[in-house]
Amino acid sequence: MLTLICVDGPGIVHAISGAVVQAGGNITESQQFASNDTGRFFMRLQIETLAARGVLEAALAPVVAHYAMNWRLDVVGRPLRTLVLASTAAHCVNDMLFRQRAGLLPVHIPLVLSNHGSLRDLAGFYGVPFEAHPVTDAASKAAFEQRVLRAVAEHEIELVVLARYMQILSPELCAALEGRAINIHHSFLPGFKGANPYKQAHARGVKLIGATAHFVTSDLDEGPIIEQNVVRVDHSRSPAELVAIGQDEESRTLTQAVKWFAEDRVLLDGARTIIFR
Amino acid sequence: MLTLICVDGPGIVHAISGAVVQAGGNITESQQFASNDTGRFFMRLQIETLAARGVLEAALAPVVAHYAMNWRLDVVGRPLRTLVLASTAAHCVNDMLFRQRAGLLPVHIPLVLSNHGSLRDLAGFYGVPFEAHPVTDAASKAAFEQRVLRAVAEHEIELVVLARYMQILSPELCAALEGRAINIHHSFLPGFKGANPYKQAHARGVKLIGATAHFVTSDLDEGPIIEQNVVRVDHSRSPAELVAIGQDEESRTLTQAVKWFAEDRVLLDGARTIIFR
Amino acid sequence: MLTLICVDGPGIVHAISGAVVQAGGNITESQQFASNDTGRFFMRLQIETLAARGVLEAALAPVVAHYAMNWRLDVVGRPLRTLVLASTAAHCVNDMLFRQRAGLLPVHIPLVLSNHGSLRDLAGFYGVPFEAHPVTDAASKAAFEQRVLRAVAEHEIELVVLARYMQILSPELCAALEGRAINIHHSFLPGFKGANPYKQAHARGVKLIGATAHFVTSDLDEGPIIEQNVVRVDHSRSPAELVAIGQDEESRTLTQAVKWFAEDRVLLDGARTIIFR
Amino acid sequence: MLTLICVDGPGIVHAISGAVVQAGGNITESQQFASNDTGRFFMRLQIETLAARGVLEAALAPVVAHYAMNWRLDVVGRPLRTLVLASTAAHCVNDMLFRQRAGLLPVHIPLVLSNHGSLRDLAGFYGVPFEAHPVTDAASKAAFEQRVLRAVAEHEIELVVLARYMQILSPELCAALEGRAINIHHSFLPGFKGANPYKQAHARGVKLIGATAHFVTSDLDEGPIIEQNVVRVDHSRSPAELVAIGQDEESRTLTQAVKWFAEDRVLLDGARTIIFR
Repeated sequence: MLTLICVDGPGIVHAISGAVVQAGGNITESQQFASNDTGRFFMRLQIETLAARGVLEAALAPVVAHYAMNWRLDVVGRPLRTLVLASTAAHCVNDMLFRQRAGLLPVHIPLVLSNHGSLRDLAGFYGVPFEAHPVTDAASKAAFEQRVLRAVAEHEIELVVLARYMQILSPELCAALEGRAINIHHSFLPGFKGANPYKQAHARGVKLIGATAHFVTSDLDEGPIIEQNVVRVDHSRSPAELVAIGQDEESRTLTQAVKWFAEDRVLLDGARTIIFR
Repeated sequence: MLTLICVDGPGIVHAISGAVVQAGGNITESQQFASNDTGRFFMRLQIETLAARGVLEAALAPVVAHYAMNWRLDVVGRPLRTLVLASTAAHCVNDMLFRQRAGLLPVHIPLVLSNHGSLRDLAGFYGVPFEAHPVTDAASKAAFEQRVLRAVAEHEIELVVLARYMQILSPELCAALEGRAINIHHSFLPGFKGANPYKQAHARGVKLIGATAHFVTSDLDEGPIIEQNVVRVDHSRSPAELVAIGQDEESRTLTQAVKWFAEDRVLLDGARTIIFR
Repeated sequence: MLTLICVDGPGIVHAISGAVVQAGGNITESQQFASNDTGRFFMRLQIETLAARGVLEAALAPVVAHYAMNWRLDVVGRPLRTLVLASTAAHCVNDMLFRQRAGLLPVHIPLVLSNHGSLRDLAGFYGVPFEAHPVTDAASKAAFEQRVLRAVAEHEIELVVLARYMQILSPELCAALEGRAINIHHSFLPGFKGANPYKQAHARGVKLIGATAHFVTSDLDEGPIIEQNVVRVDHSRSPAELVAIGQDEESRTLTQAVKWFAEDRVLLDGARTIIFR
Repeated sequence: MLTLICVDGPGIVHAISGAVVQAGGNITESQQFASNDTGRFFMRLQIETLAARGVLEAALAPVVAHYAMNWRLDVVGRPLRTLVLASTAAHCVNDMLFRQRAGLLPVHIPLVLSNHGSLRDLAGFYGVPFEAHPVTDAASKAAFEQRVLRAVAEHEIELVVLARYMQILSPELCAALEGRAINIHHSFLPGFKGANPYKQAHARGVKLIGATAHFVTSDLDEGPIIEQNVVRVDHSRSPAELVAIGQDEESRTLTQAVKWFAEDRVLLDGARTIIFR
């Protein structure tokens, strides 16, 4: 799987496909997009080849240099090394672990880090190591974030998933994880600010509630959007029922976003994502 | 069709159903809801009876008096007298007029009022009177609103539909039409303030765009929500394409809201609507 | 929670609500439907009362006798005693067990019966007893079905869920479980008969695949429909991917159907279901 | 816009992109798909170039010859010459004509042919010529089909849309229009054969009804599927209401299929369609 980003211009596809032919490869899937907003060109290619990785890299080298490409070459289906951050809510973590084991999500989760102990058994059932480190003040928060960074280094983590981790990350950690941390939050039409949005949504009688998966940035809940879903509700739903419905949307939206990321389908174009579905 | 709202308490259903039995009627459809938020009770009953309207009203009179009910008795399927306000956009007006003629929308539209002349032919094709009165300053705006109020009186209008009417109504007109004027606007996840929201939605790469139909209040775009829809979009859509997609959602959302209102399915519970689908 | 079915006629609502008033109760939620197809009347009432169950039953007794009602009185939120039948597929069982524990599904599952041992650990993690009895011939099949009937008796089972149980039930077992066994199967537009429907769906290039939850009858896959869902797919999906997508729809559709059944929202009207959502 | 189909093999993308570079063009959008089922390769390219069409064709000529490509070169946004066949139902015709005029559907409709006169005014309002030729027996049916073929020739028709045209086309006409005629029909889960499927759907209590747009083949309602949609219904809907709901799905599904076809997004792969959305 080859993904690449560069400044748009003529001849890119020809140059890339020439390198693939030269390495004895065949392009089996290809998607591209030229952004009018940023003038950048995005491409995702699935290549079938018997050649060694080095041969393909050598063929590509002059092309990526000439176009100053930001590129990434990966083996299709390789599980992405993924760190999960959690608090007490089980729904997102359960969905990810179940799908990992069932082979429905191409990730390898070497560790779940939580600020609570309540999901220990769930992780244990799926054979995933679990650590709980309470976060109660600035010092314990800093310690938790240091543990995250150490885990990222130790396990060569490629993606950090905030599976309803209920702490705000420091700007430093956001910066360190830029482009490789995904968060999930509820979404409403219209949006609600402040505490207890489900209660506000109930009070306004909204007819749709949903969830948004997005990249983590220091601007809370405002990172580039990866995936969104909504579901229909009506006036008879209590705030507690809205929460339960919203959690289902959170699980499936987060899992979908992680799957696309793990399949190299998510590319960043400034504040937007390009999703090659 | 009988709809009623009163303070919740024991015996309401029994009292109402007793009055129906007394008038020789049969309840063929019934929906009710007790609001925990406001302590009010809402009911919608479809009654089959050979008795004259007066007989049923006489039987109901002591009940509605005893419970201090806000009530409404209507003939099922009677077309609602509906005034349409429009500007230049044709999509919502076309959908309403086509459905009116096809018998899919139980409304009678005696007049379309617009601040532009561009939809005159469309209204003419459907045989609906049309008047254009330009709104260019405070005086012409006041004149337009006076024309609205006169039309409401002349035609005994029961519902005013703002079918992409692009002028803000004065607080006085909002108050005069309270609970019987429906507006449509686009909706996004997350919401965007300010001019050209489709451009903002494009810039943020939103994955869902939609529309909200709501009652008009003086608090612009914040009236009680009647219906919402969304549709999925992706990064390849230009702002112009987002507009076209959003317009389809606007048409079908507005038409749905009008249909429910005309069928007496929409009741107000403070800032929320109860929709008896 | 009171549900009732009887021949439609005047005065039913009045009689029932009178009994409720007499027992000092208050109707907090009510839904009804009169079937033009079968002439039957269906009602679901949520009643709030401080009176003992016996008091309410005594007040209702003359009414239900007079109208020859098929009725059921239940406590709201009481977990339904549910037996799960499974084979090797984990997705539906996992979803039910997770939701049971999370309090999202009002069921109590005292036992999972399977014709394979592969889900033993999953049941064990959720603390649910599990038995595997291989079904390889007529004798072992009869033994399995006897075990089902004994389990239904021992645990006073109210609902049997076929959570991708891949054996056809005998007509005798279907009859014994009539109206209290729910099955799930995939659904396509158009439908496909015969083996490997996902492969056929791929070959025809269908754009929507889904799932249907229905009551078990001896007419395989043709029982009254409780719930259906579909999801959009495109030409790039392999048959294996269609299977994975279909399984997600199966889980959520089955869980939804079970939830409605457990909440007394599913009533039978001949070959159709009335769903009081 | 360049679309092409050929036997899959190495070097195709490189060869095509080389021809584009040679003609001074730039690829602004590109989608491809290699079918495992048929071994064919499909591609759709949007090319920006100042060169004359002949220059691009000359550059492509050796490539398309070498790979024995089935190809098509078109100008983006050019309205497709489209013949509409209709009977009495207005919903699909109205939607197409409204969108054509609003610039939302890139088609030019020079003629509506119908076996009834009832849509004459609708076509007239949109300024589209209309002819009615009753079809009452074999001779008048043959005459109608001859008129279709003459109209196809006279207006150089590229697409024939059966907008609820309620006559079965002869195998000869199906063959003559192969790959360029689109039909719409209702769809249900499960499917129903025979007359009045909405009545059957009501009797079975289906929860989803929808529509399928497909290419016309002599195998009635079984041509390659282009687009499908469904919408949720419940037990309270009468057969007549199901029809009205189904018609909305028919309109939007047919219009979507026509739009994709007009944008060269629909390619045939045996019994399946490849849709480059």
